[in-house]
Amino acid sequence: MEIENSLRHLLESLRKGEIDVDSAMERMSMLPYEDLGDVKLDWHRSLRRGIGEIIYTPGKSDDQLVKIARSIAEHRSNAIFSRVSKEKYELLKTVLPDLEYREDARLGLCCFEPPRERGNVAVIAAGSSDKPVAEEAAGVAEFAGCHVERFYDVGVAGIHRLFNLLPKIRKADAIVVAAGMEGALPSVVAGLVSSIVIAVPTSVGYGASFGGLAALLSMLNACSGGVVVVNIDNGVGAGLAASLVATK
Amino acid sequence: MEIENSLRHLLESLRKGEIDVDSAMERMSMLPYEDLGDVKLDWHRSLRRGIGEIIYTPGKSDDQLVKIARSIAEHRSNAIFSRVSKEKYELLKTVLPDLEYREDARLGLCCFEPPRERGNVAVIAAGSSDKPVAEEAAGVAEFAGCHVERFYDVGVAGIHRLFNLLPKIRKADAIVVAAGMEGALPSVVAGLVSSIVIAVPTSVGYGASFGGLAALLSMLNACSGGVVVVNIDNGVGAGLAASLVATK
Amino acid sequence: MEIENSLRHLLESLRKGEIDVDSAMERMSMLPYEDLGDVKLDWHRSLRRGIGEIIYTPGKSDDQLVKIARSIAEHRSNAIFSRVSKEKYELLKTVLPDLEYREDARLGLCCFEPPRERGNVAVIAAGSSDKPVAEEAAGVAEFAGCHVERFYDVGVAGIHRLFNLLPKIRKADAIVVAAGMEGALPSVVAGLVSSIVIAVPTSVGYGASFGGLAALLSMLNACSGGVVVVNIDNGVGAGLAASLVATK
Amino acid sequence: MEIENSLRHLLESLRKGEIDVDSAMERMSMLPYEDLGDVKLDWHRSLRRGIGEIIYTPGKSDDQLVKIARSIAEHRSNAIFSRVSKEKYELLKTVLPDLEYREDARLGLCCFEPPRERGNVAVIAAGSSDKPVAEEAAGVAEFAGCHVERFYDVGVAGIHRLFNLLPKIRKADAIVVAAGMEGALPSVVAGLVSSIVIAVPTSVGYGASFGGLAALLSMLNACSGGVVVVNIDNGVGAGLAASLVATK
Amino acid sequence: MEIENSLRHLLESLRKGEIDVDSAMERMSMLPYEDLGDVKLDWHRSLRRGIGEIIYTPGKSDDQLVKIARSIAEHRSNAIFSRVSKEKYELLKTVLPDLEYREDARLGLCCFEPPRERGNVAVIAAGSSDKPVAEEAAGVAEFAGCHVERFYDVGVAGIHRLFNLLPKIRKADAIVVAAGMEGALPSVVAGLVSSIVIAVPTSVGYGASFGGLAALLSMLNACSGGVVVVNIDNGVGAGLAASLVATK
Amino acid sequence: MEIENSLRHLLESLRKGEIDVDSAMERMSMLPYEDLGDVKLDWHRSLRRGIGEIIYTPGKSDDQLVKIARSIAEHRSNAIFSRVSKEKYELLKTVLPDLEYREDARLGLCCFEPPRERGNVAVIAAGSSDKPVAEEAAGVAEFAGCHVERFYDVGVAGIHRLFNLLPKIRKADAIVVAAGMEGALPSVVAGLVSSIVIAVPTSVGYGASFGGLAALLSMLNACSGGVVVVNIDNGVGAGLAASLVATK
Amino acid sequence: MEIENSLRHLLESLRKGEIDVDSAMERMSMLPYEDLGDVKLDWHRSLRRGIGEIIYTPGKSDDQLVKIARSIAEHRSNAIFSRVSKEKYELLKTVLPDLEYREDARLGLCCFEPPRERGNVAVIAAGSSDKPVAEEAAGVAEFAGCHVERFYDVGVAGIHRLFNLLPKIRKADAIVVAAGMEGALPSVVAGLVSSIVIAVPTSVGYGASFGGLAALLSMLNACSGGVVVVNIDNGVGAGLAASLVATK
Amino acid sequence: MEIENSLRHLLESLRKGEIDVDSAMERMSMLPYEDLGDVKLDWHRSLRRGIGEIIYTPGKSDDQLVKIARSIAEHRSNAIFSRVSKEKYELLKTVLPDLEYREDARLGLCCFEPPRERGNVAVIAAGSSDKPVAEEAAGVAEFAGCHVERFYDVGVAGIHRLFNLLPKIRKADAIVVAAGMEGALPSVVAGLVSSIVIAVPTSVGYGASFGGLAALLSMLNACSGGVVVVNIDNGVGAGLAASLVATK
Repeated sequence: MEIENSLRHLLESLRKGEIDVDSAMERMSMLPYEDLGDVKLDWHRSLRRGIGEIIYTPGKSDDQLVKIARSIAEHRSNAIFSRVSKEKYELLKTVLPDLEYREDARLGLCCFEPPRERGNVAVIAAGSSDKPVAEEAAGVAEFAGCHVERFYDVGVAGIHRLFNLLPKIRKADAIVVAAGMEGALPSVVAGLVSSIVIAVPTSVGYGASFGGLAALLSMLNACSGGVVVVNIDNGVGAGLAASLVATK
Repeated sequence: MEIENSLRHLLESLRKGEIDVDSAMERMSMLPYEDLGDVKLDWHRSLRRGIGEIIYTPGKSDDQLVKIARSIAEHRSNAIFSRVSKEKYELLKTVLPDLEYREDARLGLCCFEPPRERGNVAVIAAGSSDKPVAEEAAGVAEFAGCHVERFYDVGVAGIHRLFNLLPKIRKADAIVVAAGMEGALPSVVAGLVSSIVIAVPTSVGYGASFGGLAALLSMLNACSGGVVVVNIDNGVGAGLAASLVATK
Repeated sequence: MEIENSLRHLLESLRKGEIDVDSAMERMSMLPYEDLGDVKLDWHRSLRRGIGEIIYTPGKSDDQLVKIARSIAEHRSNAIFSRVSKEKYELLKTVLPDLEYREDARLGLCCFEPPRERGNVAVIAAGSSDKPVAEEAAGVAEFAGCHVERFYDVGVAGIHRLFNLLPKIRKADAIVVAAGMEGALPSVVAGLVSSIVIAVPTSVGYGASFGGLAALLSMLNACSGGVVVVNIDNGVGAGLAASLVATK
Repeated sequence: MEIENSLRHLLESLRKGEIDVDSAMERMSMLPYEDLGDVKLDWHRSLRRGIGEIIYTPGKSDDQLVKIARSIAEHRSNAIFSRVSKEKYELLKTVLPDLEYREDARLGLCCFEPPRERGNVAVIAAGSSDKPVAEEAAGVAEFAGCHVERFYDVGVAGIHRLFNLLPKIRKADAIVVAAGMEGALPSVVAGLVSSIVIAVPTSVGYGASFGGLAALLSMLNACSGGVVVVNIDNGVGAGLAASLVATK
Repeated sequence: MEIENSLRHLLESLRKGEIDVDSAMERMSMLPYEDLGDVKLDWHRSLRRGIGEIIYTPGKSDDQLVKIARSIAEHRSNAIFSRVSKEKYELLKTVLPDLEYREDARLGLCCFEPPRERGNVAVIAAGSSDKPVAEEAAGVAEFAGCHVERFYDVGVAGIHRLFNLLPKIRKADAIVVAAGMEGALPSVVAGLVSSIVIAVPTSVGYGASFGGLAALLSMLNACSGGVVVVNIDNGVGAGLAASLVATK
Repeated sequence: MEIENSLRHLLESLRKGEIDVDSAMERMSMLPYEDLGDVKLDWHRSLRRGIGEIIYTPGKSDDQLVKIARSIAEHRSNAIFSRVSKEKYELLKTVLPDLEYREDARLGLCCFEPPRERGNVAVIAAGSSDKPVAEEAAGVAEFAGCHVERFYDVGVAGIHRLFNLLPKIRKADAIVVAAGMEGALPSVVAGLVSSIVIAVPTSVGYGASFGGLAALLSMLNACSGGVVVVNIDNGVGAGLAASLVATK
Repeated sequence: MEIENSLRHLLESLRKGEIDVDSAMERMSMLPYEDLGDVKLDWHRSLRRGIGEIIYTPGKSDDQLVKIARSIAEHRSNAIFSRVSKEKYELLKTVLPDLEYREDARLGLCCFEPPRERGNVAVIAAGSSDKPVAEEAAGVAEFAGCHVERFYDVGVAGIHRLFNLLPKIRKADAIVVAAGMEGALPSVVAGLVSSIVIAVPTSVGYGASFGGLAALLSMLNACSGGVVVVNIDNGVGAGLAASLVATK
Repeated sequence: MEIENSLRHLLESLRKGEIDVDSAMERMSMLPYEDLGDVKLDWHRSLRRGIGEIIYTPGKSDDQLVKIARSIAEHRSNAIFSRVSKEKYELLKTVLPDLEYREDARLGLCCFEPPRERGNVAVIAAGSSDKPVAEEAAGVAEFAGCHVERFYDVGVAGIHRLFNLLPKIRKADAIVVAAGMEGALPSVVAGLVSSIVIAVPTSVGYGASFGGLAALLSMLNACSGGVVVVNIDNGVGAGLAASLVATK
């Protein structure tokens, strides 16, 4: 259901005299979100994109999380919780008994109905320590209905490792590349493929990596065209962006 | 022509005894780029993506630019020069007489044949000072064969200006949003559309904008999903990324 | 009691010969603060503004806190303790038995007499994780005698959530907006209201939010006029500034 | 004229059948701004606050500036141009012959009718080099209808210079303090007054002042309550904020 | 004993034939420090300045600390340990039974003989949370033989608190000022005294104080002449510098 | 003439009935500075320290500079202008015909009477490019009455160059060390002397020197005790601090 | 075994008809690394340099570490684990019983056969707290077959400590210098030797050392030629670089 | 001539009674450098390394440069001037008529006698804009006696360009890699060779390259072992380091 459509419907009711001006004005501002007090759930966003709601867990109180979970259970809407600790997962599960937990991705997935089908997404991780961020991206893309293929530990220190994977990588409609330290892999990959490369800097590294800043700057300055960047460790953002690109 | 194909062809020549091992090894490394001495042109990259070569002009000497222009003239390959000053444009025009100059975008375009057709790209600029970067993105997307629609001066200070443009913006396959100062527009736009938003921070601003850093950080931290970011003032990168997304 | 008045009084005593020059000089420097050794309480500041003393708790030793609490109990002056842990609250309560604790705001309030009445303050929080900072601002404004209305989880990712709240928000004499991540909300709000917007960046976020720096820079570069900024997570400062503005 | 009012009027026309749904939807999005192509003027913002439009000049082309000036001339709306060079002023004057130029403030003022009357604003500058920023703030506050009093070169290196000015400063409804280098003055002033202090860091200084960053950080960390901060060198923002506070 | 003197002595022994060239060369490089393996103690430094050795404790292993303590016990040299935890103090005390512990300054003092007498040092702390750093400076200055007077909680938010202390502060030969947050106090103090002001930024604060960076930059940009700065939280360095200045 | 004395004098006049309370209050705030409109000269500061007024020239308009020069000429007070361009010098000379210009130090000196005599100051420059900053420090110290000895181009790359200068350097009461690039020299010098070392980072260098930041951080982290730091390129501050230390 | 050789061998098999084109293409991309799923071991890198594989332990799961250890045990290849906690060491030891643990260097060494012999490496540490990083460098260099000599606690605060060690230091083919705080030692050492100096900034320090940034910048700006730099605390990188230089 | 030898000679003269103690002490400090007033030339450094003196030109006055050139002419010592503008070259040439100018490298070379022969150095530049820095490195290495091979415009965007150059690159004893923007090339190269890689970040780029900072951080975090880094744009340092490594 589109915002325009509901607005049009509202205006027509007004024209037909079914409602008066005051109630029209009140309802006009009532776009489809649910007010849970200090939390507001945006059902229209997930409706618009056809992807379930994504809830970032850290900083939310137990009380807020339970309210959200209850609303999801009631709407039977697909939803994904990110950065979920084991404890938070157990809490959410009391409300959503079918919630699936992917520990390495720190994701809680809740699929009441299968997502619409989307295209192919390749998720590449430079080092084995970048796996959690890559898994987060892969999990979100799968949640959105993409077919995901994973290629891990193929960093630029042994660039030949990348080459025998190229034919498979090139089949993807969107490519996510997670890398920490010097963050060079997205630039190399983008020079070898024709799809867009969504680069995720990770906080893997130490010293002058400054918590992922080195990788972030590296990716923003990628000399290969076709590289776009999301926040440090933002696997969710990368997976979502890839899903939007892989939508036909 | 794909790298794999030419490699396969080479290996078959070897198997058939048409060439020997030493020349096979030599030719294997001869992938399709042209060595102009201290400049090397990557024809295969443009072949692979079906977009002409994009040449970043600053830092290249007159001599290097003329060499590149001559090679383009010879191959009759579509090409686009970015950040071209009026003086550099005059220089390039002596070799490429049909080079088109877009002064506000600082682009020189050279199209020997029409590009393959691609989808719709919306280019939004927050303020009137962001226009040059937005035009750069628009120019590259048009060069790549996209249909581009421009929406300028619709910053968040008057967010209502955005709303009557939404129906048109929502038709785009990819949306480029250029913004300086606080860089909030991509986050707002992404909350209202279902396509991917490619955010370009611009260096518009002063003081604590730190040459576009404030806008860059803002965009990387966009609370709306579906926002990806390119380098400060990188209209070319945004336009190219949008073109890759809008490719069907 | 104004500094000028007490000074005038002092000088008149001198002129009348009631005191001599040396004691005049000594008393001239005795402005109304109380010296508790390594802590000095500024009663004249709270007198001047008509708002009780605000005590920032972290970094103060138990001994210093008890000294301060005892002095407050003795003067029966309104006071507010900020960033109070549960433990520190218990300690302070032994001296100030009526101390009220607001756990989500981390505030300890002590009101011996009702504050003077002030105007309306709206406190807006972009996300549910920004609630503690917003509550801190709201608590201080209420302590100062303002009427406070809260609007939480109305971030720019779903900007429509803001619109149906606008009529209420516009009634405020001063508006506090707390936001982390990209910190775009103050700029959007300021474009829609006519009161001053006091922006509080929060440290909510990760990666390139750099502990609230992204939101801070965003707010300082707000393209809408009428936005002023306080330190990251400084709910107290925002609440106090709003109270000073809402004073008629 | 308020947005709500015009919206209500529109809805009533629809209910009365004076317009149909499609034209209602089209007009609903037509809030009162003027589309000059790549520039859009927001008359409703100045209407709402009762302060004329403020136009930031740098980055706008001559063509854009002339378009804006013509629209102002046509609407006979009060307007102020900031950071205006002598050359730009001459250009604008060809369209707006009564445009007043304040060279030290780099402001161009255009007042077709006197502004509504507002309260008292004190503008304090720490050093003589901070004068241009202070004058910018003072000019905007005067443009908005405030009574402005200036106090220049009263930095903390000779803090006694401040004390004999205190009685006058304390009469202000809002106090703007511009300071570069270590930016300590707002903190000192705020400790001595009861109004809000709007601190403007200036880029005055060298070396580790990092273009005003030192002063900015200093002001954000002001230990005195009641200090709010705007961007480096943002005299316009400070003057506007002071005017909003001084509105009764 | 000066290096020159021992060198001269060595050369004279050589000239007199008491030692040969090879042993002269070997002994020439034996300047008065003691090699404890991976730790080397510089007795000549303390000899030169007449101040005992100062040992920075963090990062040193128990084994290294015991070695150092034993050497001190053997030489019966005055020594001061900084940033000493309670645990490390207990360890050192097993070797140096007379070691005095100042818990708030985190110092361990060991005085086998009274230090040479030096001048007056004033130690000022802006806030009560700056006390540990101020006590560190005061402790080192006392260890070096200075007469120290302390002035705590006299920050710029209540600048009048400073004025009645000025006559006493002006008697000091060197003034240490410790301040966190905006770090404005050294600038204000230096404008009122004629001695050198040694400014110590402290890490007291939060948000945009960036661990003391705001105070550090503020102090480096002090608009008052006569301010010099040491590292963040470096009470030892400030106390030592003050002692060198107060040496007659 | 001390502030206290004049205050005492004022109070005594009041007590004797020579003046009334109102004029006492007015005169109390009239501390000895001269109000030139937007510039205020602090004669009492130079009186207190016995060093003439130091005027930082950049950012001051011609009009402001002439006002200051005239006041100096009138008071016949010693004064020093820093960062004076050749053009500004010519301007000032029209008012102060005896103004001496030191081009390499960018100083204008004006001595109506010889300064009081002070001690020895050593000024060391690491590289030949650090000379202008070193000369600025030397000039100010000489202006203050110190005996200055210069030691230039003795950087740590050839540390032996330092050793044969040590006997002379050790005679100084205060040592100024100017160094750019890695800024290591103050740490090395302080390990070899017993006086305080006032370190001045210079902006000499390129790339990761970040305009003197590398040297600044290096000096703040000096592992040798007895090093204090001033702002980047702040020769004036270093010279003044050295003069205060060298005052007996 | 070189990559070229195996490639040549592969091509010859193809020419001789021993393999067909498809399997040639498949095998061409099979360069000598071992795919352990989400971890890939690069045996060819260690083959090429003649140094065993170096495995950075942090961020790798127990499962990944055991997989790597098993593969090492199977290939009987020399290997070194860096940043190994006591717990991880115990885990690895269950698979590699001969694994040697160097606790201060946090290294686990596994030598199935003695390394090829290389030249002399000097490892210098400025302070006793820099020892762990220095030991890491020394351990890697020894693992690679170098003869290593250690020189600890010879910082610039007592530069004379360095001089009697110079004759020994000058014998090294490559010199590693680890230093925190101001990081000046590499510059001083490089001015006195003729070999290359590999500088390792350490995170030793506090306040404005910013986790080793001060030392890093200092080393990058070293005024002595012949200094190269590795990441903060990167003892492994320094040891490996020294080994490559010391290879004859 | 070594420092030890001359020292030994000096001591023997003393022992033999040929000189007395005082003159021994004086001469001991006279190590072989030449004092030209505010410039001191270090002949012993070039003697020790067998490479002529390298003079960094910027920041040196004409007078200083002429002094240096005259001293070089007199000693007939090989020397190289870096960052030489055309104007400075003309100046130097008046004293050194045989000075060779390499305009693209901004070097002035002066070779009175051929340098000692050293090994092979490969100089790789990622983009054509990195050529000036690469040429600076190449020029210094040639000046030092190395055989230099250049490989330009082989950035990671077209990583295949690198592969056919690998056999030649692998022959080098030391490899210099200059790269701007994301600075990924050194990491890729180091993964494919066995020599040390000396990485030079260049300031080529814009926006978030922050003047070479992105490339610098990228190189410091290189995931391939064997990469060491010099300052941004420091071609001289890279060339010198490569020469020291290539010395047999």
